[in-house]
Amino acid sequence: MPHQLICDLKDGANVQQYFMMRQAQSGTTKAGKPFFNLVLGDKSGLIKAKVWSDVLSKCPGPFPTGNHFFVQGQVESYQGEAQLKVGYIISVEDLRAQGKDLRNYDPDLLCQATPYDRQELWQELWQLAAEEIRPPLRELVLKVLDRYGEEFQVCPAALRYHHPYLGGLLEHTWFVARHALASLNLYGDLNRDLVLAGAILHDLGKIKELANPPAPERTVPGQLLGHVVLGWEMVRSEAQALEFSDPTLLVQLEHIILSHHGSMEFGSPILPKTREALLVNFLDDLDAKLKMMSQHLESDTGEGDFTAYNRALQRDLYKGGSAAAGDPEPDREIEP
Amino acid sequence: MPHQLICDLKDGANVQQYFMMRQAQSGTTKAGKPFFNLVLGDKSGLIKAKVWSDVLSKCPGPFPTGNHFFVQGQVESYQGEAQLKVGYIISVEDLRAQGKDLRNYDPDLLCQATPYDRQELWQELWQLAAEEIRPPLRELVLKVLDRYGEEFQVCPAALRYHHPYLGGLLEHTWFVARHALASLNLYGDLNRDLVLAGAILHDLGKIKELANPPAPERTVPGQLLGHVVLGWEMVRSEAQALEFSDPTLLVQLEHIILSHHGSMEFGSPILPKTREALLVNFLDDLDAKLKMMSQHLESDTGEGDFTAYNRALQRDLYKGGSAAAGDPEPDREIEP
Amino acid sequence: MPHQLICDLKDGANVQQYFMMRQAQSGTTKAGKPFFNLVLGDKSGLIKAKVWSDVLSKCPGPFPTGNHFFVQGQVESYQGEAQLKVGYIISVEDLRAQGKDLRNYDPDLLCQATPYDRQELWQELWQLAAEEIRPPLRELVLKVLDRYGEEFQVCPAALRYHHPYLGGLLEHTWFVARHALASLNLYGDLNRDLVLAGAILHDLGKIKELANPPAPERTVPGQLLGHVVLGWEMVRSEAQALEFSDPTLLVQLEHIILSHHGSMEFGSPILPKTREALLVNFLDDLDAKLKMMSQHLESDTGEGDFTAYNRALQRDLYKGGSAAAGDPEPDREIEP
Amino acid sequence: MPHQLICDLKDGANVQQYFMMRQAQSGTTKAGKPFFNLVLGDKSGLIKAKVWSDVLSKCPGPFPTGNHFFVQGQVESYQGEAQLKVGYIISVEDLRAQGKDLRNYDPDLLCQATPYDRQELWQELWQLAAEEIRPPLRELVLKVLDRYGEEFQVCPAALRYHHPYLGGLLEHTWFVARHALASLNLYGDLNRDLVLAGAILHDLGKIKELANPPAPERTVPGQLLGHVVLGWEMVRSEAQALEFSDPTLLVQLEHIILSHHGSMEFGSPILPKTREALLVNFLDDLDAKLKMMSQHLESDTGEGDFTAYNRALQRDLYKGGSAAAGDPEPDREIEP
Amino acid sequence: MPHQLICDLKDGANVQQYFMMRQAQSGTTKAGKPFFNLVLGDKSGLIKAKVWSDVLSKCPGPFPTGNHFFVQGQVESYQGEAQLKVGYIISVEDLRAQGKDLRNYDPDLLCQATPYDRQELWQELWQLAAEEIRPPLRELVLKVLDRYGEEFQVCPAALRYHHPYLGGLLEHTWFVARHALASLNLYGDLNRDLVLAGAILHDLGKIKELANPPAPERTVPGQLLGHVVLGWEMVRSEAQALEFSDPTLLVQLEHIILSHHGSMEFGSPILPKTREALLVNFLDDLDAKLKMMSQHLESDTGEGDFTAYNRALQRDLYKGGSAAAGDPEPDREIEP
Amino acid sequence: MPHQLICDLKDGANVQQYFMMRQAQSGTTKAGKPFFNLVLGDKSGLIKAKVWSDVLSKCPGPFPTGNHFFVQGQVESYQGEAQLKVGYIISVEDLRAQGKDLRNYDPDLLCQATPYDRQELWQELWQLAAEEIRPPLRELVLKVLDRYGEEFQVCPAALRYHHPYLGGLLEHTWFVARHALASLNLYGDLNRDLVLAGAILHDLGKIKELANPPAPERTVPGQLLGHVVLGWEMVRSEAQALEFSDPTLLVQLEHIILSHHGSMEFGSPILPKTREALLVNFLDDLDAKLKMMSQHLESDTGEGDFTAYNRALQRDLYKGGSAAAGDPEPDREIEP
Repeated sequence: MPHQLICDLKDGANVQQYFMMRQAQSGTTKAGKPFFNLVLGDKSGLIKAKVWSDVLSKCPGPFPTGNHFFVQGQVESYQGEAQLKVGYIISVEDLRAQGKDLRNYDPDLLCQATPYDRQELWQELWQLAAEEIRPPLRELVLKVLDRYGEEFQVCPAALRYHHPYLGGLLEHTWFVARHALASLNLYGDLNRDLVLAGAILHDLGKIKELANPPAPERTVPGQLLGHVVLGWEMVRSEAQALEFSDPTLLVQLEHIILSHHGSMEFGSPILPKTREALLVNFLDDLDAKLKMMSQHLESDTGEGDFTAYNRALQRDLYKGGSAAAGDPEPDREIEP
Repeated sequence: MPHQLICDLKDGANVQQYFMMRQAQSGTTKAGKPFFNLVLGDKSGLIKAKVWSDVLSKCPGPFPTGNHFFVQGQVESYQGEAQLKVGYIISVEDLRAQGKDLRNYDPDLLCQATPYDRQELWQELWQLAAEEIRPPLRELVLKVLDRYGEEFQVCPAALRYHHPYLGGLLEHTWFVARHALASLNLYGDLNRDLVLAGAILHDLGKIKELANPPAPERTVPGQLLGHVVLGWEMVRSEAQALEFSDPTLLVQLEHIILSHHGSMEFGSPILPKTREALLVNFLDDLDAKLKMMSQHLESDTGEGDFTAYNRALQRDLYKGGSAAAGDPEPDREIEP
Repeated sequence: MPHQLICDLKDGANVQQYFMMRQAQSGTTKAGKPFFNLVLGDKSGLIKAKVWSDVLSKCPGPFPTGNHFFVQGQVESYQGEAQLKVGYIISVEDLRAQGKDLRNYDPDLLCQATPYDRQELWQELWQLAAEEIRPPLRELVLKVLDRYGEEFQVCPAALRYHHPYLGGLLEHTWFVARHALASLNLYGDLNRDLVLAGAILHDLGKIKELANPPAPERTVPGQLLGHVVLGWEMVRSEAQALEFSDPTLLVQLEHIILSHHGSMEFGSPILPKTREALLVNFLDDLDAKLKMMSQHLESDTGEGDFTAYNRALQRDLYKGGSAAAGDPEPDREIEP
Repeated sequence: MPHQLICDLKDGANVQQYFMMRQAQSGTTKAGKPFFNLVLGDKSGLIKAKVWSDVLSKCPGPFPTGNHFFVQGQVESYQGEAQLKVGYIISVEDLRAQGKDLRNYDPDLLCQATPYDRQELWQELWQLAAEEIRPPLRELVLKVLDRYGEEFQVCPAALRYHHPYLGGLLEHTWFVARHALASLNLYGDLNRDLVLAGAILHDLGKIKELANPPAPERTVPGQLLGHVVLGWEMVRSEAQALEFSDPTLLVQLEHIILSHHGSMEFGSPILPKTREALLVNFLDDLDAKLKMMSQHLESDTGEGDFTAYNRALQRDLYKGGSAAAGDPEPDREIEP
Repeated sequence: MPHQLICDLKDGANVQQYFMMRQAQSGTTKAGKPFFNLVLGDKSGLIKAKVWSDVLSKCPGPFPTGNHFFVQGQVESYQGEAQLKVGYIISVEDLRAQGKDLRNYDPDLLCQATPYDRQELWQELWQLAAEEIRPPLRELVLKVLDRYGEEFQVCPAALRYHHPYLGGLLEHTWFVARHALASLNLYGDLNRDLVLAGAILHDLGKIKELANPPAPERTVPGQLLGHVVLGWEMVRSEAQALEFSDPTLLVQLEHIILSHHGSMEFGSPILPKTREALLVNFLDDLDAKLKMMSQHLESDTGEGDFTAYNRALQRDLYKGGSAAAGDPEPDREIEP
Repeated sequence: MPHQLICDLKDGANVQQYFMMRQAQSGTTKAGKPFFNLVLGDKSGLIKAKVWSDVLSKCPGPFPTGNHFFVQGQVESYQGEAQLKVGYIISVEDLRAQGKDLRNYDPDLLCQATPYDRQELWQELWQLAAEEIRPPLRELVLKVLDRYGEEFQVCPAALRYHHPYLGGLLEHTWFVARHALASLNLYGDLNRDLVLAGAILHDLGKIKELANPPAPERTVPGQLLGHVVLGWEMVRSEAQALEFSDPTLLVQLEHIILSHHGSMEFGSPILPKTREALLVNFLDDLDAKLKMMSQHLESDTGEGDFTAYNRALQRDLYKGGSAAAGDPEPDREIEP
């Protein structure tokens, strides 16, 4: 039986396949019996699951986050939400230890990730920096990309709000940078190098804010300092190491990173005071919000013309809004 | 003596040329003598002027707003601001009546206007609608453009904040529409027709909000109703007259117009609830803010690395921000 | 057994009577059995109900919203709230098809509606317009009332917050208009015609915002455009059709409608800039808030001197506040 | 020459009459000469005045606030505002000491005051309390009115915002109380005694907040404690002295007074938690805002359809709004 | 078996001991059986408890709030929270009536209270007033302390937010007053008497706002008037009774009490306008927030470096923050 | 003639002494004559000065900021503010070049500075760090103090709001650190080292935000990045250089610095999430606000019980508040 994507699981469906463990919490029923609330994931999303005591007795766990499990069960609807009632659950490690057949096990299916080819995105982003930015910012940007390339290609863009999956940071950055390139055609008197460098590096601090990309969580420095200043410091250090030649240019790039949230209420310690900073701030916010809207539209399975209320967006959304929801391939051929 | 642009007038300069009257207010000096505070304009901006009582006795006025005047005088600095001390002032009408030589009188120099060729902008905007939007929205947009074309080409985009000059609405709309076209290359799953129609029509109501483009002022309906709803009603009426075939599409276009201020605090009665509306909202706001920044940077003549505080933007601006301030020709050849 | 009003149902009560279906959602118990969460209504309010799987097997539904059902069951208290445990449920259509006795079936009992006589309210409102408003606004108001009379008499005033029932708009408008009439005795220099026309028409757009009065829901235009601008456009169109003679008067009436929410945060695109608009804004807000308080006081069944916290009002209420909660007959005889 | 009202003084007018000194501040001209900036008042309003050094030499002052002066001078327009250039100024005391003729001196003309007959207002307010409120609140209200009657009849309602003149508190209270009476006809299930007592006593604390009614200023307790709590304590003390019999009723009246500003941001330590408190809060706010609007419309002498921006109201006002601005006699005969 | 503190109860523990009843609410299971949700308390905190129908049949209650009960049961984890499944429950009264052995019954263990010795705190607070404040404020403060001493020593500082237990007001006041004493060493030009009197009396009104200290609830005056003004009035009355000699000093003390919430949004009708008032405002807020943090840290039993989100503080907290959470003895020997 | 302090200069006084140039701006009178608006300073404050054209002709300047000048002139009152009418002005350099007698020239008198002995403050601050903080934070703090000691001792605490003078940062830091030491006596379970290190280093970034301490101005990095993050980076770099041994401790210190403004609206990118951070945030804010109040009280020279409105504090202040305004020596002997 081929893997059924979580986003396609319907009430009543039978499931016999692999999942990634995303959360696991034990509990006790009113009748005093132990059970487990799980959150299982695959590349298409998340689903809650219950392991009742009768199943627990033969499948006692443990259920460490990030590990892969084979699960048998049935999909139920609970309070309007799909939920998996687990009949059997065992970790891939245990299966392997028991010498079981893992033919259908495909780890690539289990991890939520950007729908785009990460290598292509990365190459294009790197090339954009190499071709469109002039020295001395070009060197700085490439140096940073090279140093943090590995993390940059897997880091999510956020824990929950937008692009909360493997490669999300890269996808988000690609869109912001490409959009910036297009905007510069119209607003040609802006400093092109600053805008592009800012667009590429604005969210760099996410790399230190978030850990464990397949099942992301915030780090202690991420929660006590925040990605805005962490990213700023990473760029500043790199420039220092490079003995960056133009301090006036550098401080403007630093300003773009620090001010990219656009207002102090949203965690930037300073407002954008250059047009370059304003542009990056807008394109970042726009891409994040468009994605949040897409995500909310996709996740809404209810009837009616409007989604449920979305807290982060502080509104409900019209579901008839676009020809097609989802994330189509952007036109990658065009030279904007 | 050729016309000296107001933006180039320096302390001590002698002036012998034509201006448009933008404001005139009589007063009395501490010593009890009458005088006039004027605001004079040409295509490059505005300058305050004083007509003291000794001059008034030979040049008694009147000084109706919007009329053209020949002025002799000297530029002074008053509280850090250039000001014209008028030595002689007479209206073009009076000069003409006296059969005077008006050889140097060039009305085109006296009116603040978009730096772009309005006809070109208009043609390009019209073409964008004609070529990029599909029926049935194409018909609606072209019908609206045709009906309001004359006003659309002269109306300012605002009284003060951004593009506050003849053709400002057209310039602003051109940038928003072209930017939208570029953005659609990236966000290809948005409804292209809605985005472009919304981008072109979002500020249509300015035409009824503002009167007298060369020396703009708000109309009574503009102040009691506002351009957001006025523009919505103009499009809705036009669609009704056209017996627009797709009510679901129409209500989404109407939604884009009503929600384009992005939040209720800023005068939209509704938040953007589609991604198309969100995109138009962002591109509109971005163009307006970038222009406000450019205008503030250009008008700042002080020393130091930062401008004076700008109330509307709620910040001061860094003056070293771009290679060159001002409004360079955007790259008009490119096909984004 | 006569109909017991929902507001009077107490823990333990046996129920054998008709209800209107207001909501129906299927679910699955922890033990994997299907059930239905219903919301049933009658003229006195709403009650949640459960149909467990054993009952479902003999009463499989469907349970379409707005339809009438005969229900047997028992009232339980669940988390401090009354809830009906359904023993048997069948639609009136099915009963009729089975040729069953429908003697006790009284559809008038099943629909939540204004406690006042709608015909009387309507007649008085119409008369108020006819007698107290002078031409040319009199003609406009009466024309609008005549055209939308049917919907006006059944439309709720809101989905949830205040007067959320059949005839709610009429009841609310009657109170605001009568209050306005009384206020004009004190503030005699206001434009009487504008205040009364504004009071009567301020919420007209609700007719297009809300559909299906007995079980109300928001329309797509209602959610994408909002009742404030919809009502404005309805009046403006009507005036245009009438070739309304006094544009200055008309724009002030339009202003009252657009600004009646009193602030931009609350969805008016413009602030009240006339005293007439301010008065209508206050009387509308006051009637809505007093009604919300009454509704909250009535619905609170807990002990103690204060109600639970009310989100919309952002406060709890003192329950000892009035001689008697509820909606007594206002003094209809008086000529204010 | 009869007294010309300040509100009627026009540019160029000659003045020979009495004024009340409202403010006096000495200064030095750029040329080093002393002068005085005065604010003079009569019953119709305030006017700024200048006493230059040549006049000062013969009219050296002093110019104590609240005193009456005979002034000769000429009205000028300074920055669009009428201003009196003083030619001669002498106090009534000095004139009297010099045995001068004071035939034209009428102190009643010099003090800004409510346009209504204060005795009539007072009598009607007292009667309203005596006839419309039932015991035990009747006794409490009358006791308070009797004890503070003298101050109540002269106190302004505010220093600047609304009714800032002799008798302003009484006028404001009369309107709020009469409006409350009318509102109770519609909202008949409210506690009538509480609403009326609250309406009459809500601003009682102004009496301790403001001193010197003809030329009002804030007291130290007024600025350190505020009228809201001062008025509450005055009523509470009086009730204690009366051994008020119904503590539940009393605490609700106290609540109305403390919450009458309607929100904590506006200085009420508590939100209105009863419908009675909400009604008084709305009628108070409405009367204050309508008056502020009237005052602003009256004081605006500029051209155009809209007034200048009013800070307290945070808007400009439409000047074509009412048949007639100003304060017509409310219909005092009617029994609402 | 000695009393196990609630804060130490772990999943699976058996319990045979006394508790205070803090809340009791009856319910019905899905299967239609009655049960009780209880909240039980001891000196270390609160725990939820369930009494299912089988137990109820032999232990029918009633369960009045504030009474003491002997309970047998077992601790379970429900949704991550410890909960007691009651096997047997009987009131101390019934045990006594049955002549049962109450050897292990220690009422002192059952009431949540300040960890400090209340008598010591009280003595030190009184002494601080007696030794550090000079006349005439000394007399006033001591008079107030003496009159309200009994309530002051048991009253909580709040219902929920901080120090929500017996003696909480005293503990909070002790810290604020001692901190004020230390601060005065640095800010020596402040009026020492005012600061100390204000620190001691700022929350006096809690005594009238909250009733029944062992199981606190808000009074009607507390909810309709609030502790800020209640406390102010208590001090003002006392001063009046004392014929307090210095009205200027008194009004400043009154101002400190009224303004101690620091802003109008937080319920002070006036902002601190003296440095003394500002200091008391800060020290009060600081002690409350530090305590809220301590309480939240202590109550958090989850894993991870950060607590759950705390609504009142609007943040989550870092759990590695201090050497040790909890409430150590402050250094009581030191003379700050 | 000895130096008269600016704060003591009264209307009419003759002046013959030295000042520091703080600002200089040229202008033209209405009569077309050039003049200079100056701001002159000494250790006690600032005074505006005018150099009219007749004086300019003999004293042509230039007037570079920060330089010292000898000035003859007379104090006038202009719009209620003291102003110096300059009769003669010459720079100390020119005097020296002319070989003039500079006997009365004392540069120490000309610079606004903390009233405390900077060396003593510095020594005590250093000692506090050395004695009260334990390793490893002790080393880090001392290392930072040593490296930035020179700037730390002269830097102002702000440009305008509080301690805007030479040594202001040191004075402010001394108070916050000493206050923290005292607070730790009460809140003994806080991490003492973190609190003290945070108190000492919280405003370190001011050193890079502000330049030219005697006549301070903001730097470009100061305006584009802000002192909050600049200070954080300075400490972080230093710790890196030191190979600081305890990363968990370090990140908490960094958190204190980044969060010390207490809220995002005030420019901290993160809220205080530890009690240590909260304490430093409060003590910093308290010292700044107390100082702002003192400064405003001192600068107010008007009559009446209340100062003029202070924008930064958003209130007026009571002037009878303290025994004595001003900055008395804090009790330096005490061991808190």
